[in-house]
Amino acid sequence: MSVTWPRGFVATGLASGIKPDGVADLALVASTGGAVPAAATFTTNRACAAPVTVSRAHLAATHGRAAAVVLNSGCANAATGATGLATAERTAACVAGPLGVGAEEVLVCSTGLIGRTLPIEVIEAAAPTLVARRGGSPADGTAAATAILTTDTHPKQVTREGAAFRVGGMAKGAGMIAPHMATMLAVLTTDAATTPEVLGAALRAAVDHSFNALIVDGCMSTNDTVIVLASGAAGAADAADLTVALTDACADLAWQLAGDSEGTTRVGVVGGADDADARLAARAVAGSLLVKVSLFGADPYWGRIFSELGASGAAFDPDRVRVAYGPVTVVETGLDVGGVGDAAAAYLAGDRLEITCDLGLGAGTARVLATDLGHGYIEENMRTS
Amino acid sequence: MSVTWPRGFVATGLASGIKPDGVADLALVASTGGAVPAAATFTTNRACAAPVTVSRAHLAATHGRAAAVVLNSGCANAATGATGLATAERTAACVAGPLGVGAEEVLVCSTGLIGRTLPIEVIEAAAPTLVARRGGSPADGTAAATAILTTDTHPKQVTREGAAFRVGGMAKGAGMIAPHMATMLAVLTTDAATTPEVLGAALRAAVDHSFNALIVDGCMSTNDTVIVLASGAAGAADAADLTVALTDACADLAWQLAGDSEGTTRVGVVGGADDADARLAARAVAGSLLVKVSLFGADPYWGRIFSELGASGAAFDPDRVRVAYGPVTVVETGLDVGGVGDAAAAYLAGDRLEITCDLGLGAGTARVLATDLGHGYIEENMRTS
Repeated sequence: MSVTWPRGFVATGLASGIKPDGVADLALVASTGGAVPAAATFTTNRACAAPVTVSRAHLAATHGRAAAVVLNSGCANAATGATGLATAERTAACVAGPLGVGAEEVLVCSTGLIGRTLPIEVIEAAAPTLVARRGGSPADGTAAATAILTTDTHPKQVTREGAAFRVGGMAKGAGMIAPHMATMLAVLTTDAATTPEVLGAALRAAVDHSFNALIVDGCMSTNDTVIVLASGAAGAADAADLTVALTDACADLAWQLAGDSEGTTRVGVVGGADDADARLAARAVAGSLLVKVSLFGADPYWGRIFSELGASGAAFDPDRVRVAYGPVTVVETGLDVGGVGDAAAAYLAGDRLEITCDLGLGAGTARVLATDLGHGYIEENMRTS
Repeated sequence: MSVTWPRGFVATGLASGIKPDGVADLALVASTGGAVPAAATFTTNRACAAPVTVSRAHLAATHGRAAAVVLNSGCANAATGATGLATAERTAACVAGPLGVGAEEVLVCSTGLIGRTLPIEVIEAAAPTLVARRGGSPADGTAAATAILTTDTHPKQVTREGAAFRVGGMAKGAGMIAPHMATMLAVLTTDAATTPEVLGAALRAAVDHSFNALIVDGCMSTNDTVIVLASGAAGAADAADLTVALTDACADLAWQLAGDSEGTTRVGVVGGADDADARLAARAVAGSLLVKVSLFGADPYWGRIFSELGASGAAFDPDRVRVAYGPVTVVETGLDVGGVGDAAAAYLAGDRLEITCDLGLGAGTARVLATDLGHGYIEENMRTS
């Protein structure tokens, strides 16, 4: 169950021919009642893709309302200039027609290789079928979630129940797993009744505390987009309740994205001077090439973690630092504990690892996800074709 | 020829026993005339090692004068608390005695694993021999340059001739090649007559335009140190001449450090709104995990470069961007040139690669070095022991 779980939404996915071999590559998520309140967060990359530019313009033109989202995999439609903008507009229009809504009420997402022209003809040819097939069953939601995948190993879906409303969502990612696709897309739906303003604020908070907080891949893709539509079928929702439900849903999807990878380690920082400092430190450790490689090697050499904490920009007093691999504390008051190397190595040989760094300076905390960097990553990403 | 080439300097290196198997691990560079003007730049890592703290304090106490630098490999003496500070002080003192200078006139550098106690007894035992062996021949300089190596494949040395003075230098590195050692050390000597203030300003400019500008490894080690001593044996030097000579020498060493690696690519950015923007963009491309992996794979997929330019924070207009692999332009006015994939792939299969990114916005330029990320890097760094 995912985007079709909240009342008032339908979805589907199919193989339009953008990808070879009949692989699903085109998805639709639509309101059953035409344009409804909508909000989105987009990549801050200045090389943003055409669908990002078009979706941002559409939301501005409708003052935060949308009837549908159409998503394709197999081509990012980025670095494609004026042609790319035109094809993104045509993608929206060819779905809007059969849906009986305005083209500006359709948002567009793309993911795939940069610099390739989107084969708009195959999308236009498939659009009537895409719209005709839309449905409200769990299978319809899964069909949409499947059609947006690139090198993900499985679709990512989520549902959350609020006080008197539902939230559903799907995502594809990307950054952690197969970064040559490098894009994170998510579409959330809710049947809460709300305004575009409240919905937008709730989404920004949710994204900040989930995708932006949890995932470290060091790359901000040209296409990253998170969209939410609110049908209002369930009656009015409290803004705080809505924020919590969206945050939970986004955090769940973020963990699923990170988990679609061989090795994932939770890096927690406590004792930061404040939360912002703790996040700086956690991101430095989780984003470190050397830490990632040592996690792949199950090597309990904590010197790299210590060095990254010191270089992170966070307030830092070496004499107060504690570092632990799971239950095994390896550094206390900034010094090697000694005699625990075997225990630490044994812990690191397992799965679902946790590294905890206590800066000993305050109440600031943060938690991010680090993925291993090993031979599989090299093999996966050394060639795009 | 290196640190002993300028008049007024001696050097040597030997195996003290910090490293096993009789590998050289202790080096000395000394003025023949006692304390002379000196300057240094140190890591900004807040987890800086004991020798960094001690050397900084010594230079402050002497108001920028030093008689010698003692350097060890095999142990970083970082994350070692009060004991580490004491052993760094003892390292300076045990060399100062036989040299007949004050302990504060000796600077200390260490490189190796973090969190291990420096075996000060073996250093103290070796110090009289180290001092007795010092000499002014090229072989003596090479002995010093060899004793500071960690996983470098060969010593790095440089000489430069100024208007009426000489500059010599040695370095070990590190960041690009075997980052679990993660330390860049360099000692420069000159026989120019100058003041600590002029020498310090010249060194800061030189480091900013060489090590800091050229090398991208994303890690700021706990021990990074660049030291220069000026004997004055050659008479007064113009500050500008001195800055140019030191910059040339440091740039040469930086290229040697980066070159001690399987794959190195020069990333040049032109057309930046200004030099600072160009440097931002160049560092983003050169530091990108995905770009590094694609260089290893000789993959001419330029989408990653384009995306990193857009995410770098530099002013960016996609429609003005040109990207070239060596002589092969793959992107023009932000669009795929088309039909050059094979030529680009053929170029990338070679050595000594250059990537040029033209932002088309102004006169800003920058050039940095990117190293490949491949299976060798994983093997080298996945375990420290």
